[in-house]
Amino acid sequence: MKDRIQGCCANFFFEYETPRQVLVRNRRVGIVCRFIQMCVLAYIIGWVFMYEKGYQTVDTAFGSILTKMKGLAFTNISGEERIWDVADYVFPEQGASSFVVMTNYIATVGQTQGKCPEVPNGKNTCMLDADCDEGKYKRTGNGFMTGKCVNKTSTCEVYSWCPIEDDRKIPDPPVLKVAENFTLFIKNSISFRYFNVVRSNLVEGVDQAYISSCQYDPINNPLCPIFRLGDIVERSGLNFSEIARFGGAIGILIEWNCNLDFQIKYCKPQYEFYGLYGTGRNDKEEKPSLGYNFRYAKHYLENGKEKRTLMKVFGLKIDIVVYGMAGKFDIIPTLTAIGSGVGIFGVATVVCDVLLLHLLPKRDFYKNMKFKNTEMLEEKPALSATEKEKQKE
Amino acid sequence: MKDRIQGCCANFFFEYETPRQVLVRNRRVGIVCRFIQMCVLAYIIGWVFMYEKGYQTVDTAFGSILTKMKGLAFTNISGEERIWDVADYVFPEQGASSFVVMTNYIATVGQTQGKCPEVPNGKNTCMLDADCDEGKYKRTGNGFMTGKCVNKTSTCEVYSWCPIEDDRKIPDPPVLKVAENFTLFIKNSISFRYFNVVRSNLVEGVDQAYISSCQYDPINNPLCPIFRLGDIVERSGLNFSEIARFGGAIGILIEWNCNLDFQIKYCKPQYEFYGLYGTGRNDKEEKPSLGYNFRYAKHYLENGKEKRTLMKVFGLKIDIVVYGMAGKFDIIPTLTAIGSGVGIFGVATVVCDVLLLHLLPKRDFYKNMKFKNTEMLEEKPALSATEKEKQKE
Amino acid sequence: MKDRIQGCCANFFFEYETPRQVLVRNRRVGIVCRFIQMCVLAYIIGWVFMYEKGYQTVDTAFGSILTKMKGLAFTNISGEERIWDVADYVFPEQGASSFVVMTNYIATVGQTQGKCPEVPNGKNTCMLDADCDEGKYKRTGNGFMTGKCVNKTSTCEVYSWCPIEDDRKIPDPPVLKVAENFTLFIKNSISFRYFNVVRSNLVEGVDQAYISSCQYDPINNPLCPIFRLGDIVERSGLNFSEIARFGGAIGILIEWNCNLDFQIKYCKPQYEFYGLYGTGRNDKEEKPSLGYNFRYAKHYLENGKEKRTLMKVFGLKIDIVVYGMAGKFDIIPTLTAIGSGVGIFGVATVVCDVLLLHLLPKRDFYKNMKFKNTEMLEEKPALSATEKEKQKE
Repeated sequence: MKDRIQGCCANFFFEYETPRQVLVRNRRVGIVCRFIQMCVLAYIIGWVFMYEKGYQTVDTAFGSILTKMKGLAFTNISGEERIWDVADYVFPEQGASSFVVMTNYIATVGQTQGKCPEVPNGKNTCMLDADCDEGKYKRTGNGFMTGKCVNKTSTCEVYSWCPIEDDRKIPDPPVLKVAENFTLFIKNSISFRYFNVVRSNLVEGVDQAYISSCQYDPINNPLCPIFRLGDIVERSGLNFSEIARFGGAIGILIEWNCNLDFQIKYCKPQYEFYGLYGTGRNDKEEKPSLGYNFRYAKHYLENGKEKRTLMKVFGLKIDIVVYGMAGKFDIIPTLTAIGSGVGIFGVATVVCDVLLLHLLPKRDFYKNMKFKNTEMLEEKPALSATEKEKQKE
Repeated sequence: MKDRIQGCCANFFFEYETPRQVLVRNRRVGIVCRFIQMCVLAYIIGWVFMYEKGYQTVDTAFGSILTKMKGLAFTNISGEERIWDVADYVFPEQGASSFVVMTNYIATVGQTQGKCPEVPNGKNTCMLDADCDEGKYKRTGNGFMTGKCVNKTSTCEVYSWCPIEDDRKIPDPPVLKVAENFTLFIKNSISFRYFNVVRSNLVEGVDQAYISSCQYDPINNPLCPIFRLGDIVERSGLNFSEIARFGGAIGILIEWNCNLDFQIKYCKPQYEFYGLYGTGRNDKEEKPSLGYNFRYAKHYLENGKEKRTLMKVFGLKIDIVVYGMAGKFDIIPTLTAIGSGVGIFGVATVVCDVLLLHLLPKRDFYKNMKFKNTEMLEEKPALSATEKEKQKE
Repeated sequence: MKDRIQGCCANFFFEYETPRQVLVRNRRVGIVCRFIQMCVLAYIIGWVFMYEKGYQTVDTAFGSILTKMKGLAFTNISGEERIWDVADYVFPEQGASSFVVMTNYIATVGQTQGKCPEVPNGKNTCMLDADCDEGKYKRTGNGFMTGKCVNKTSTCEVYSWCPIEDDRKIPDPPVLKVAENFTLFIKNSISFRYFNVVRSNLVEGVDQAYISSCQYDPINNPLCPIFRLGDIVERSGLNFSEIARFGGAIGILIEWNCNLDFQIKYCKPQYEFYGLYGTGRNDKEEKPSLGYNFRYAKHYLENGKEKRTLMKVFGLKIDIVVYGMAGKFDIIPTLTAIGSGVGIFGVATVVCDVLLLHLLPKRDFYKNMKFKNTEMLEEKPALSATEKEKQKE
């Protein structure tokens, strides 16, 4: 018994099975088959290994972003001079990855809660008091109707923050047109946890001296993290003066494509800009989505009465997205890539077999070579079975 | 030498190897094997190709979101009438993808820095001055204790913003219950960079006229980008009046599942709503996480003294997430899918071989057919080796 | 005809092809081959199945986060006592997943629009009026130059918010050093849509009583959702007092790694902390990115004149990221994993064949066993072809 088990083990370990193959010497089939195998090999080496780097483990990054705008604007609206700094035109103020730079606004100063007529913008007209349903409000209205129709403006009187904002005329040119020259500083850190690599967009060579003087340029300064707002808008395919007047949204994509088989210093960010709305490419259908604005209020107390300044802000919304990928040689994915490559080689054999066994004139001869038939054998298993079979066919 | 190399090359290119196979004519094994192969084929065609679209390259989208709330609320708290518009009830105001709509609040008007007793809510009671550790603060307290126990309230006196906020009673019904009728307009743009496709949720047919009158409905208006707040809450499985009173969080998922092998107009968004906290599904364990609130302060100067109105805001936090996938036919993934499909065919052969060589009565006969043994041959390689071997077995 | 089709079908369904193989009894090749096959099997079972759980369908989570800071600070700056609560030191206030906790600040009280000289910080010095270009502004300046050089400070006079902020001296120790003891409460909900599973970080055992007293600790309280700010900073490898003074950014990663083949209660979050900037690891290159600050303004009206308090806030920016993965047994990925595993087995055969046919002394013998040559046969197909061939070689 013990001997038998030992024998089995010995058999198992010292034996090796390899498929028997027919070596077909046929020019046509040979060339087709080798060609297909070459293609598969080229695909595996060129695509799977070289292009897709199938021999690497891949990790995506967690990124973090800090932003800082810089720039000043000076306005002179009907004699009132005013200076705007970063605390005035960035929302929110804390330097997030998604923020708005105000480029135009309609201010309604000194609003108080009370009664006043709607602005005659054609949407809230009335002829009689009966047109103004007391206590209700219209989807296009700004307050609850008091039931009175004001003759002077031919609009309903509403209970609301008064006076009502008049946004019929958007300032042109935009009030803060100078925003074109504001600069944006982006600080981006990424972390590939799998490889324990942390990297910042202030790479080698981007030091304090360089930052204090550089400005991003895809050709000359592709790594400078300081961007001129006007450049960003232009590179995203939008038109600054239009965006500045009506508002718009722009995406900045920071792409990290790192091959950690090389030195870490070659792991550098790439900046891309794309317009998110109102590109004008599909003009007709995008019409309803043109522009970007929001309202906010600055509250204050005047003579013990609560007042507010309502701002309708048109601006440039900037969304910064980080997309990071890093790869590094690893034995496991290499083996998997080789393994599945070997599998794909089987496709070549399948295709050539179809050619050999179904299309060539001598197909019956090749079938004979390739296949050994058991049909007869099941009836009368004999030693010279293979020979007989061949004769029969 | 040159001839020999040429010969080798000729051999290599005009030769073709194909495995020799046994054609087993056996009903049982044949049927089992064909059935397994059918399953594999059905899996490859049905699952890999049809369902998972293995013949397509896939790209995920970068999405950007703008939001705008609309709606007015009118409150009358102890005679003080007040109107609330979007600048008052949305945080933050700039139309981000994650924001809060205030539905209820506790206002503490006119706080100044000073000394006052804690609110008697059962957590900061004291009997003697000794209970109030001077200069320390309790985790449940609102300020630094002065070391004095106030008799009237039986609570410690603290240095804090005074008067202390009293949040023992949350208004019921919620102050801005009418928020149910507010509407949310979502503008969503996605960009599949790999395919250079930009798409907005204002698809064909969703034009200015439609937007100005429509309201989202999964059956009749599945593409209308205007949502009633009450509907959103209801569809996410939450209860509006409860959420409005205590606050809550809701996720809106915009899903894009685009097959770019078809026309771009079939690439449409789908909206889904889900409650994030306090669904009541796992009632007991979710108790501690019920509700959502935050505090913010409006600062002002009154008679040269800094004051603030502290607002404890209960609201609906809305998180909008975009998830986009697009696929398009490409030759590379098609080949890879076919290749790995051929590999899986091998499984059928493996299973059938087990059946054939180990379970069938005639297994020894089949083993003989399939395998050619070299053992003997190593000792005395002769022409009739195979015959002899067979005899031996 | 009908008979023939039936015959074909019968043949197809009752036939089964299996490759013919040579059983090579050779110790060296046998051991090498079995060893490679063992490795492949170990790789498939150990790596693909056990480690990577290839038998599971995988879904990533959509997560939502609510945060709440707690803690009070008391400052005494040149005799002015002041208390700071959450409404004063958190930006933005609504409990988002990314926020800033103020730890230090430079306040410039009572700014009004007007003319004043720049702060003498060495960057805006002038000798003569000619050094100050009227109407222009310098990148390092704070306003538009009036064209006047102020003797007293030797700096240009600018039109700006006056007085100009003097940020030459950053308070040390940081004003809100006590922020170290503030606590952060994180409420996180994730939803695996594919499996219809919703889960919160307030798992079993984390109830109201536990929350009101616990504090996160990786060893003793790994599930407590309340974090001490000082601990977070320390665990991320940064130095609190430095971060508090100059500002910094920290990432909190909530990782969910759920095996839904087990009970849902084993699906628990893990918290990780990492410093995003200024880790000091790559000291030299990170210098320019050290610190984090932003400016915001509190506007108010004094005697009918608009004024503002400009705050330069240094703080701890906290980014919370959720990363969730869940897997569950599914038949499709199981089959795919097995299928590709079988494919990789082919690699073993390829390697051993190289050994057998090209390196062993008896390689010609084995070639003979494995290959059947058709070259001769194409000329004169005879019954004893294989025998003759062997003789020839």
